[in-house]
Amino acid sequence: MEATVKFYEIETGKPIVVMNEEDMKELGVHVGDRIKISKGKSSVTAIIDATTSIVSQGEIAVFEEVKKELALARNDVVNIIEAPRPKSIEFIKKKLKGQHLHGHEIISIVQDIVDNNLSDVELTALVVASYIKGYDMDETVALTQAIVETGEQIDFGDEVVDKHCIGGVAGNRTTMIVVPIICAAGLTMPKTSSRAITSPAGTADTMEVLAKVNFSIKELKEIVKKTGGCIVWGGAVNLAPADDKIIKVEYPLSIDPEGQVLASVMAKKKSVGSDYLIIDIPVGKGAKIEDMETAHHLARKFIQLGERLEIKTKCIVSDGSSPIGMGIGPALEARDVLLCLEGRGPSDLTNKSIDLAAAVLELAGKARVGEGRDMAEKILKSGQAKEKMMEIIEAQGGNPNITPETVALGKYTYDVLSARTGKVNSIDSKTISKIARASGAPKDHGGGIDLKACVGDDVEEGGILYTIHSSNESKLEDAIKLAQQLTPIRVGGLILEEVT
Amino acid sequence: MEATVKFYEIETGKPIVVMNEEDMKELGVHVGDRIKISKGKSSVTAIIDATTSIVSQGEIAVFEEVKKELALARNDVVNIIEAPRPKSIEFIKKKLKGQHLHGHEIISIVQDIVDNNLSDVELTALVVASYIKGYDMDETVALTQAIVETGEQIDFGDEVVDKHCIGGVAGNRTTMIVVPIICAAGLTMPKTSSRAITSPAGTADTMEVLAKVNFSIKELKEIVKKTGGCIVWGGAVNLAPADDKIIKVEYPLSIDPEGQVLASVMAKKKSVGSDYLIIDIPVGKGAKIEDMETAHHLARKFIQLGERLEIKTKCIVSDGSSPIGMGIGPALEARDVLLCLEGRGPSDLTNKSIDLAAAVLELAGKARVGEGRDMAEKILKSGQAKEKMMEIIEAQGGNPNITPETVALGKYTYDVLSARTGKVNSIDSKTISKIARASGAPKDHGGGIDLKACVGDDVEEGGILYTIHSSNESKLEDAIKLAQQLTPIRVGGLILEEVT
Repeated sequence: MEATVKFYEIETGKPIVVMNEEDMKELGVHVGDRIKISKGKSSVTAIIDATTSIVSQGEIAVFEEVKKELALARNDVVNIIEAPRPKSIEFIKKKLKGQHLHGHEIISIVQDIVDNNLSDVELTALVVASYIKGYDMDETVALTQAIVETGEQIDFGDEVVDKHCIGGVAGNRTTMIVVPIICAAGLTMPKTSSRAITSPAGTADTMEVLAKVNFSIKELKEIVKKTGGCIVWGGAVNLAPADDKIIKVEYPLSIDPEGQVLASVMAKKKSVGSDYLIIDIPVGKGAKIEDMETAHHLARKFIQLGERLEIKTKCIVSDGSSPIGMGIGPALEARDVLLCLEGRGPSDLTNKSIDLAAAVLELAGKARVGEGRDMAEKILKSGQAKEKMMEIIEAQGGNPNITPETVALGKYTYDVLSARTGKVNSIDSKTISKIARASGAPKDHGGGIDLKACVGDDVEEGGILYTIHSSNESKLEDAIKLAQQLTPIRVGGLILEEVT
Repeated sequence: MEATVKFYEIETGKPIVVMNEEDMKELGVHVGDRIKISKGKSSVTAIIDATTSIVSQGEIAVFEEVKKELALARNDVVNIIEAPRPKSIEFIKKKLKGQHLHGHEIISIVQDIVDNNLSDVELTALVVASYIKGYDMDETVALTQAIVETGEQIDFGDEVVDKHCIGGVAGNRTTMIVVPIICAAGLTMPKTSSRAITSPAGTADTMEVLAKVNFSIKELKEIVKKTGGCIVWGGAVNLAPADDKIIKVEYPLSIDPEGQVLASVMAKKKSVGSDYLIIDIPVGKGAKIEDMETAHHLARKFIQLGERLEIKTKCIVSDGSSPIGMGIGPALEARDVLLCLEGRGPSDLTNKSIDLAAAVLELAGKARVGEGRDMAEKILKSGQAKEKMMEIIEAQGGNPNITPETVALGKYTYDVLSARTGKVNSIDSKTISKIARASGAPKDHGGGIDLKACVGDDVEEGGILYTIHSSNESKLEDAIKLAQQLTPIRVGGLILEEVT
């Protein structure tokens, strides 16, 4: 069939087209089917996304991807024939039926994901099936390797150490303290981190307060060569593009299939050539992992997968029941980090960072077992870690003279006061994060929460529990409203609820 | 946030929008999230479908549905805030976890499906979860009722009888013979049928050769009042809109979750007020159901669901191993039907139609048990059924003087000959249907296959096995090519394959 092209200026991320219903009947195709569109010797396979009477018979509407791929001009005539479905759909159906997938089948699926050959419906079917049916260890290994192989891989030439946190705890910005300690000890730690998706700050957002975080692979290698480490945004280097695309369909369903989480984390480590890896698994109400049993199970899986991938992996199960540090939001967390590097930061953040750094040093054989903590503490207290951080900040185009006091916080503030006198019983990460997001974080680097009390502190009625910061007056109002509805900090008494 | 609207002239079937990435960060939303768009006092909730740099900061691109809903004009400024996800997504997640859904939860999901509140990702998650986890009978009843209640319902004022076929067998056009027999016997049989999706003809496509099939509910009632029955396209009357939307995501995955099939069939029967229902379940290689065990299981489920819905249901398991009748394709099948009504049609189609009609007559108490066949046969042989069919054709705007010989077949033809002398061992429905579709059916009513030999017939080398018809020379060529590659009819010998 021949058709005249019509353009819609949208990047859809996939080669999709819109056709008239009569033409689709003529061709014998339906929404969700593929067609091969040819102009001269070039051709592209696209998915029929919708049928509409706005596109006339004899027309085909294409989006940016197809337009570019075929170098189409207005009113070009293209040839259209039905195209077969990708073979990987049969493998997705195998997983739907609960069957084991072979390595080559997983590679075929992942390649089609990266090449944008699967529609949202097909990709969702895979994610939901893997959520319900699970992947065994062989499948998880194959999935991880396929994600690595379909993305960029960086060889830093040296043994590489790495850390990862499962997340879910507000303020938990240990990476930015662990990396300079480890690099000061002489190890190579090129850390790629993520931006916040549903939290008020990711490590990449926080680092961005102090330096640039978007670099090419070439630039990254230069930074690491110069300083021994880096703290950058992983999204800029296309390490695991399949994973990014899978996350896009997991997000609306808020599901994290275990095999997918394992593969996602480990693929990114394998892509930068990590040899040693410490994984922090915070456990507690409000954290991603709420019970020890799940934490142990996940830890075992990470270690097994690490063995199969030749990454020596150790998991640290940590207390994730409360926020860590005093700041929640990029600038406030960056200030905490700088304070810790100067030896005057929140003690929980300082201590946890030393513990994690110690684990890295011992795992990589830099310190003998039992001696890692001393080594890490010395590096931090001597100022070597701070010096290393300033080197990294400078190498990443930031200001090496930044101090905790010169970090710019949101200028509009509001103090939330305690309604009673007593001890702080709990601070809920999820709730306090919601308020921080309402204030504008992470997009507004200066927005967020400055905690004035920790769990166990005594507060007076009318004393300040926390200060909300924002760079925008109306966002501050939004955050205040939310703070008045929610009670992220529980003070005094042990009564949780009255049931009548 | 305020934004200036920009239009894309596409009907997407859902209220979706495209935004600039920076605006999304500002608003704290991601692809797949909802926003509420307001203009004056009107507002609509839309799903963010994509982010693109083609839409500038401060702009929002909307499609036809949102444009119409808010009566937007070019450069209108709208207000945007984040909107919560529909509650039904939590219920979909319950099903993902394998939990039982309560009636009100299923209603909430189905209502959101009908209101286009769910994205493809969310709807696919439901379909895949129901495929893997299944629905129990309580859930299936609730699903059926929800589909009925969210669509149109028609009260014909009388007791209504109905039939349904699970499908998958080429040429199996019994409905168009059963309906006139039953209506001639004085029962009310308003039959809504489907069009072909992957087959070369649905009953609606075949009836369309003889009469119109798209009617409003009001017109339908008039036709049924006049003739006692009808044979129309169900899609025109919006009987089960939720089902139509669910099928759209099942299609690309080619999955039919059992609970969904049960609900889909029975909802359409309940919507027209059916009291008695005969379900034909063809079993055989190439049919939808390939073994007796599955057929029995499905039959029991249909009967149970019928009891719960107060539809007296009987299932007939039939031989689905070969095509039924001689024609495959709308006009060729319509010709078979007219021949059967004149007493000179293919004997398999005639006999099966009489058997099904007998079952309907006995189930509805019109004939005593064991006497249905005689009654049906008399009505057919006496010409009463033909007379009734012509009444229905006339009431549906067709030509009541049509004869088998005046049905227009595709004028381009090609005879496929037997390569050897022997007995016809098998005719494969799937393969013969593929060739019929290549010839242009169902869009080309005249395209299709005219079988010249049935299973068990003796054929000579060089004798005609079947004739391909098409209204289009190049489609005929396509079909011939396919016929040369495939062997839908196996002649002579019993060797299936040689394995070396």
